Amino acid sequence: MFVYLDNSSTTKQYREVTDTVVRYMSEDFGNPSSLHHLGITAEKAMKNARNQVAAAIGVGDNEVIFTSCGTEADNTAIRGAAYAGRRRGKKIITSRIEHPAVLETFKSLEEEGFIPVYIDVDKEGMINMEQLESEIDDETILISLMHVNNELGTIEPVEEAAALKGEALFHTDAVQSFGKLEIPTKNVDMISVSGHKIHGPKGTGALAVKSNVHIKPFIVGGGQEKNMRSGTENTPCIAGFGVAAEMTHSHRSANITHMDEVRDYLMRGIIDGIDDVRINSPKEHYCASVLNVSFLGTRGEVILHTLEQSDIYVSTGSACSSNKKNSKSHVLTAAGLSDEEIEGAIRFSFSDLNTIEEMDYVLDRLKDAVGSFRRLGSFR
Amino acid sequence: MFVYLDNSSTTKQYREVTDTVVRYMSEDFGNPSSLHHLGITAEKAMKNARNQVAAAIGVGDNEVIFTSCGTEADNTAIRGAAYAGRRRGKKIITSRIEHPAVLETFKSLEEEGFIPVYIDVDKEGMINMEQLESEIDDETILISLMHVNNELGTIEPVEEAAALKGEALFHTDAVQSFGKLEIPTKNVDMISVSGHKIHGPKGTGALAVKSNVHIKPFIVGGGQEKNMRSGTENTPCIAGFGVAAEMTHSHRSANITHMDEVRDYLMRGIIDGIDDVRINSPKEHYCASVLNVSFLGTRGEVILHTLEQSDIYVSTGSACSSNKKNSKSHVLTAAGLSDEEIEGAIRFSFSDLNTIEEMDYVLDRLKDAVGSFRRLGSFR
Repeated sequence: MFVYLDNSSTTKQYREVTDTVVRYMSEDFGNPSSLHHLGITAEKAMKNARNQVAAAIGVGDNEVIFTSCGTEADNTAIRGAAYAGRRRGKKIITSRIEHPAVLETFKSLEEEGFIPVYIDVDKEGMINMEQLESEIDDETILISLMHVNNELGTIEPVEEAAALKGEALFHTDAVQSFGKLEIPTKNVDMISVSGHKIHGPKGTGALAVKSNVHIKPFIVGGGQEKNMRSGTENTPCIAGFGVAAEMTHSHRSANITHMDEVRDYLMRGIIDGIDDVRINSPKEHYCASVLNVSFLGTRGEVILHTLEQSDIYVSTGSACSSNKKNSKSHVLTAAGLSDEEIEGAIRFSFSDLNTIEEMDYVLDRLKDAVGSFRRLGSFR
Repeated sequence: MFVYLDNSSTTKQYREVTDTVVRYMSEDFGNPSSLHHLGITAEKAMKNARNQVAAAIGVGDNEVIFTSCGTEADNTAIRGAAYAGRRRGKKIITSRIEHPAVLETFKSLEEEGFIPVYIDVDKEGMINMEQLESEIDDETILISLMHVNNELGTIEPVEEAAALKGEALFHTDAVQSFGKLEIPTKNVDMISVSGHKIHGPKGTGALAVKSNVHIKPFIVGGGQEKNMRSGTENTPCIAGFGVAAEMTHSHRSANITHMDEVRDYLMRGIIDGIDDVRINSPKEHYCASVLNVSFLGTRGEVILHTLEQSDIYVSTGSACSSNKKNSKSHVLTAAGLSDEEIEGAIRFSFSDLNTIEEMDYVLDRLKDAVGSFRRLGSFR
């Protein structure tokens, strides 16, 4: 049995998405900027995908800028807003548990003279709202707060935070919640989403920018995407992204109910069947796509590789930070977990394609893997 | 008969490329950053594509950074080099006929206090080498000069120019020559290429950065591409890009000979069969993928749409600047063409897939289109 539980890293592409991509790769291959009808056909595909993605986010068609990934959307939003606001102030606020795409952009802006502030989170990864409120002042030009944390699944109170923004622009990285939860839009100026987390193509993302908001463009050139993102449009993958957005959006409520059942079944099974575990994901305010568990006295990496031998795929933290080998998860660290808890952490992440039957198999293999590690120790 | 002569805008993807993309979209869909073997398979695909693209450019595997397009590669190179060199000087040099991805980045850097210099070109689009030499001084930190111009097909003396660079970093946008000509690498520090101009996928590009050169990263985040380009890798399209690079590279010499025959046949037919034409592309030092011709007393846009009715696809200028409707081509303007010459200009751009038979058809339809315009006047 093949069980893929690393859906927060990337998802298996829907067949309908691949079919759409292939169509625009082989038949309607024009450049949307071309004046002839091959260009016009490509432009129509862009328009259709824009409608689909806008509807799934809950913004207007004219508010969607296609990017090459969620990371580029985050870079575009944060840099664009910081540069647009620099005459008014230099203070930029985010949380300690954001994706590296946000944190590294903040670091880079700090080198350019901006003043970053990092809001703390509690044991469940929930942002400290009092601290946020007290930090927002007249110098604040940008607040960036993720909707759902990628390692813990915590749902942050984005609209509540956005209500406090004052003159600042408010950005949310909604990569993990897109296609699963309703996206917060009230008082939110910019929203980042990604295609490959919703069974869409890699190499696609979007930044929604409210029509009354003006930020500086990031990638410049031929003036595509109303001058907000230059470069020949990746029409085939964008058309596929549109299909994935529509498919996940139209089944969102059924999908999340299903994921919650699967997740709950796995969680109950772990709590009942394995000693010395700690559920790191929140008890409330969680997104059902993520379950983070520490198997105390084990090493997550070893559990991962043991499960892999049974064709079960999980993650130890976010894939995005696994490039920095041997570094502790900044999210679990910020949530105040002990070294032992971090060392033994596994992230199970779900999609609508997972089943209860798969969880029975996972529980069986997981008990073996944890038991065997605890008996034999690390293979380090 | 379907005749696609807009290959400098974008190309029809090779079937082998699409097959590779589909494989990584449907079967081996892992995130290269994942620790399990789905991630490792994806990472291997990246490595293989990197070898293929590096070999086609003529640099080392460790010198290739994958990007989402040629425009992003240009932005990355120019911004990265400008920021890396800002302590030493502010002067940045380019030509007047670069792609907007270069020119707009220069404009944006000018707003940040850098001092851009634009080198003139002659009637054939050839850069003024004396002017370049006299402009390079101790304050110069970057020179960016395209290899082949996208509208005229002019081959610029890149290595000759790079020999003059002094302490500056030298970048070349080789998007139009990649897969067709040998890429200049001597004294060249950074090289931009793109996938969709060589029958590869849209949404792919690469920046080669010589191993002894250090520039500031552009898109930051999870640290992919050795920290030089963050964001989940678009493995399927990158794998396809690798296939396209290998295919065009291994047939490069045969392909360019073939394109030159097809181009020459069309050019002779135009000169012999149609009055009052001006060949705008150079007589020597041209890349056989482009033929730019002015049909005096006509409007290129009308000719384009007339040809389109016969399933023949051409361009009036670069697709990339057609977003700015009604603006005159900055390339033809810099080359000193008259308004009439610019107004009647058509760009025919070739790939290895075009044939002599197609050119007979094009010549027939073209004579009709030009003749009919000249008899009846503009349909404006």
